[in-house]
Amino acid sequence: MRYAVLGTGDVGRTLAGKLVELGHEVTLGSRTKDNEAAVAWAGDAGPRAFHGTFEDSAAFGEVVVNAVGGRLALAVLRSAGEEHLDGKVILDVSNPMAFEDGEMRLSPVESDSVGEQIQRAFPRARVVKSLNTVNCALMVDPARVPGEHQIFVSGEDDGAKEQVTALLGEFGWPAHRVLDLGGIRTARAVEMYLPLWLALFQSTGTSEFNVEVRRAR
Amino acid sequence: MRYAVLGTGDVGRTLAGKLVELGHEVTLGSRTKDNEAAVAWAGDAGPRAFHGTFEDSAAFGEVVVNAVGGRLALAVLRSAGEEHLDGKVILDVSNPMAFEDGEMRLSPVESDSVGEQIQRAFPRARVVKSLNTVNCALMVDPARVPGEHQIFVSGEDDGAKEQVTALLGEFGWPAHRVLDLGGIRTARAVEMYLPLWLALFQSTGTSEFNVEVRRAR
Repeated sequence: MRYAVLGTGDVGRTLAGKLVELGHEVTLGSRTKDNEAAVAWAGDAGPRAFHGTFEDSAAFGEVVVNAVGGRLALAVLRSAGEEHLDGKVILDVSNPMAFEDGEMRLSPVESDSVGEQIQRAFPRARVVKSLNTVNCALMVDPARVPGEHQIFVSGEDDGAKEQVTALLGEFGWPAHRVLDLGGIRTARAVEMYLPLWLALFQSTGTSEFNVEVRRAR
Repeated sequence: MRYAVLGTGDVGRTLAGKLVELGHEVTLGSRTKDNEAAVAWAGDAGPRAFHGTFEDSAAFGEVVVNAVGGRLALAVLRSAGEEHLDGKVILDVSNPMAFEDGEMRLSPVESDSVGEQIQRAFPRARVVKSLNTVNCALMVDPARVPGEHQIFVSGEDDGAKEQVTALLGEFGWPAHRVLDLGGIRTARAVEMYLPLWLALFQSTGTSEFNVEVRRAR
């Protein structure tokens, strides 16, 4: 499969690297054609790894992964070109987090989410929110943490969620550990989990953790 | 120990009932002196169970449990009387949730929390946020769900958190499953978990669940 991964930070490079390792072709997208991190990544990652602008990347990919910060997502996807998103699965792994005066702030929050913003802005794309509840090392290697901890998917399109669930399986998340929360509105729920993620990170001192939902027998 | 439990809903009655069962004395508080639910509860729950106004209850309790909805908490605690809260532990188990036009809304959210509001309004009280991340049956009987799932505490006063941790132990939460998230500001984190709790409730069809934080080995 051909993937566009938008964003050259840790999250984008980790996802892109894993996808190449799995045998997929990836174009890592950035704002400029000659982004240093993207050039270096493509040089290291072998013959299935490419780099280009957000538009080059989205034109290339059959699936588009939004790995830029949630607050940048709409602008980046617009610059990728709506015509390169039509009908495609957009996997949104972002969180709309920023630090302002040393405090974490989410925006949008509560009455909206990045997942919903993207789906509204690109109604012919098939947006699936997932993976934003774990750090990027865990995204592609969940066995780093023991136990039957889970990952969530949110989206309007069942076929798109199935496709993402299959991809999550390639990353190491078996289907029974992929919890379908429902429509894209539930992206609010997983985005609003971030303050708890951050509090757990600060109290435990590690970012390598995840939650396992346990139910009554 | 003498407890004030403010609020005669499921949460208040469940907590009050468990406290009486554990050998404590409880005054269940409500807006009026002759609240039907409170009168019935005190009649059924035996000689250590009392009922009264919020003020009666708070005057009686050595520890005050806020079990009214988060949006009512400040008004209820004000009517209980600041002089009856001074120096006491206030265990806040509330969520600032309401349904508006069929949609869940949290207020305050993100830049504030009920836990912080209470601590600001009653600076001489020692506020601890806890238990708001599970349904009330689980609050007092965590063994209903298997596994090493945890409960969170947030607050400024370490002694108050120790006292609440001991109470959680009486409810069935061993100390190693009580995660101290830090100061009362982290009440935001556990209050903002509610949308995910609700999405999990809706997708799993049960309210008897909790999360177990799993860490890398």
